[in-house]
Amino acid sequence: MVKDYAMKMKKAAPIMGTLSSEVRNNAIQEAIKALLSNKKAIIEENQKDIDEAIRNNISQAIIKRLVFDDSKIEAVTKGLADLIELEDPLGKVLLKRQLDEGLILHKETCPIGVIGVIFEARPDALIQIASLCIKSGNCIILKGGSETKRTNRIIFTLLHEAVQKAGLPLHCMYQAEARSDVDDLLQCEGYVDLIIPRGSNSFVRYIMDNTRIPVIGHADGLTNIYVDKTFDLKKAIDIIVDSKIQYVAVCNAVENLIVHREAAKQLLPGLNDEFKKNSVVVRGTDEVREIIDCEKADEADFTREYLDYIISIELVDSIEEAIDIINTLGSHHTDCIISEDLSAGDKFMNLVDSANVFMNCSTRFSDGYRYGFGAEVGVSTGKIHARGPVGLEGMITYKYKLYGNGHMVKDYADGSRFKFKDII
Amino acid sequence: MVKDYAMKMKKAAPIMGTLSSEVRNNAIQEAIKALLSNKKAIIEENQKDIDEAIRNNISQAIIKRLVFDDSKIEAVTKGLADLIELEDPLGKVLLKRQLDEGLILHKETCPIGVIGVIFEARPDALIQIASLCIKSGNCIILKGGSETKRTNRIIFTLLHEAVQKAGLPLHCMYQAEARSDVDDLLQCEGYVDLIIPRGSNSFVRYIMDNTRIPVIGHADGLTNIYVDKTFDLKKAIDIIVDSKIQYVAVCNAVENLIVHREAAKQLLPGLNDEFKKNSVVVRGTDEVREIIDCEKADEADFTREYLDYIISIELVDSIEEAIDIINTLGSHHTDCIISEDLSAGDKFMNLVDSANVFMNCSTRFSDGYRYGFGAEVGVSTGKIHARGPVGLEGMITYKYKLYGNGHMVKDYADGSRFKFKDII
Repeated sequence: MVKDYAMKMKKAAPIMGTLSSEVRNNAIQEAIKALLSNKKAIIEENQKDIDEAIRNNISQAIIKRLVFDDSKIEAVTKGLADLIELEDPLGKVLLKRQLDEGLILHKETCPIGVIGVIFEARPDALIQIASLCIKSGNCIILKGGSETKRTNRIIFTLLHEAVQKAGLPLHCMYQAEARSDVDDLLQCEGYVDLIIPRGSNSFVRYIMDNTRIPVIGHADGLTNIYVDKTFDLKKAIDIIVDSKIQYVAVCNAVENLIVHREAAKQLLPGLNDEFKKNSVVVRGTDEVREIIDCEKADEADFTREYLDYIISIELVDSIEEAIDIINTLGSHHTDCIISEDLSAGDKFMNLVDSANVFMNCSTRFSDGYRYGFGAEVGVSTGKIHARGPVGLEGMITYKYKLYGNGHMVKDYADGSRFKFKDII
Repeated sequence: MVKDYAMKMKKAAPIMGTLSSEVRNNAIQEAIKALLSNKKAIIEENQKDIDEAIRNNISQAIIKRLVFDDSKIEAVTKGLADLIELEDPLGKVLLKRQLDEGLILHKETCPIGVIGVIFEARPDALIQIASLCIKSGNCIILKGGSETKRTNRIIFTLLHEAVQKAGLPLHCMYQAEARSDVDDLLQCEGYVDLIIPRGSNSFVRYIMDNTRIPVIGHADGLTNIYVDKTFDLKKAIDIIVDSKIQYVAVCNAVENLIVHREAAKQLLPGLNDEFKKNSVVVRGTDEVREIIDCEKADEADFTREYLDYIISIELVDSIEEAIDIINTLGSHHTDCIISEDLSAGDKFMNLVDSANVFMNCSTRFSDGYRYGFGAEVGVSTGKIHARGPVGLEGMITYKYKLYGNGHMVKDYADGSRFKFKDII
């Protein structure tokens, strides 16, 4: 049962959180060694997963994501080596303040404790997530997609053995395998401190709706681009097409285009030609259909996350109207303005209430790797704790430590005896 | 209806969040003026609340908290003046990074948006909370205790008029009055970004259990003190007695004392004498009762938040056992070690999984004001977003802004074209 294990993990968490940076980095080093020296066995298990996927008529696009070959093992271990080099996120003194003589307050970073991550069938995801947890001193419950179950199993076993060799506690990581384990995990309030679900919108929404444990993630990705009245035609077409077609099945692909009425006639014909060339179906309002030949959009199309070669287009009178539409109907994930007017850009970026607000670039840049963060555990559209791509910093909290020498509050009841002085 | 207002507030929130620091500080200045120049009217309304409380046989201790007189108005306006002097928490650039030439990423602080705060009947609380929201650029829904309804009403009206004079949007603050408004507020997902409940444990637990909006708060305060084998008798007695009796009705008063078996015979007799002098009832295990004369504790007493002149005492064999008890049965709020051994202190403070971990000082120090934070909106025992006393920093999030010049992801698909360089 996941809960039994989570209870043991809760007891291991303080130990895990107080291991030195050296021990945690050594554990990642041991993981690298174990992966590299067991490449052949890993690839064999991975081949069995792929064979099964082929037997099950899984699409080629998905099978491509399941593959864990020599070059992918090299790439992921290189990522681990980079992670070792990163500064230790634990034990950072955020504040050191004298409250009175001999009464010293510290605010220090520490791990969150026990984190559950549910992720898609991609073998490198398991390794990245586990290593971020090790680096940040958290215990972790991992539940990967079943399509890579054999690959996950061998990788998990190798990692678990490797990190124990480096001195990590036995109960620092656990792999959940059964589908029912997800529901068990959601019931682990008091033992699991945070859940990070990745996957389809409906799956993430299900997780959010069925647990009292804090959840970081994003259930929707209704990404919008707004084209302002002063815009550069080539840039606009390039950015919109890239945002739509570079990879359609993801949350940061544009789904809805909002165009200033003064820009529509100049932009839409050329844009529509590019869409046609790339087999993108356009759904527009009646007004849009007076300018270009496209399908008729219904009301619901403007809040639909297509995840496909489809885009909806509507017109507005002002940047304010566009911002209002985005804030009201968008999903607060990634939204972009195309404009040659920097003050309009700043207005948009300040007023749009989204984790990622862009000017004159593809919405597909919204990603931890492209931000230069290294590995990410997830993307958050919530505004509490972590927002946007979440790396190490999302797996960290802090605590207050107060060192005294017999100090009693009765002596400070009127407040006059405090001698506040920041030391750091 | 709270929801109708919350929807309007959601539209006002981006405006509120982009007002300059000067405008927000002026709004607080106007609030100070309005409070000072309407002292007489405020005190009159407050007297009506107090008269009603007396008619309703409310206890003297509670009535004392309802009083809002000349000196309290002076104190709270002084607090507002201090708040104006604090650094602006908005628009801080946490990261500025070149991803490639002309493609610049900013990570900037911004307000959370719309915050609902439910707080106890204390007129200064309304003013402190509202002013923290103004300073941090958040819109706020305020719901105060009904015992100060007349005082709250006049103060809210004065504040609302004052901040509009300074240019804040009409819908930047709203006062909910009916008890049913609380349940309405809990249904405002999508419009309200964060709820901060203060009050009784059962009330906070009710809020946490009945909304999908993120909640910051603490439902319990089972505060523990552990006395280690090497301890100073006078310090120990002073600290324990102060932690128990300085103010019994609060979450940071000690409820449970855990004593190392080697310390028990030296500590307990003298401590028990002090407890008797101060009318504190002691409940101990059989072992404790062999050393001192006290009531017999049952199992449940060690997880009971008395909020009264009662304390439970148990013995342990080691610091590890004490830490395990605290992590398993405590409420992760405030826990203290009394020891003359610094390495034991550090062990305790590192391994105890609580927001506030203390060594050799009263647990009653666990408080934003005593930490020198100025006003606080609440105390969090959660580990996500904000932990411990929550001031301005708990009302802030951040967003990523990416400025480009026609950049498309297709040109960066293999990652080699990025030129990451931190500018700040």
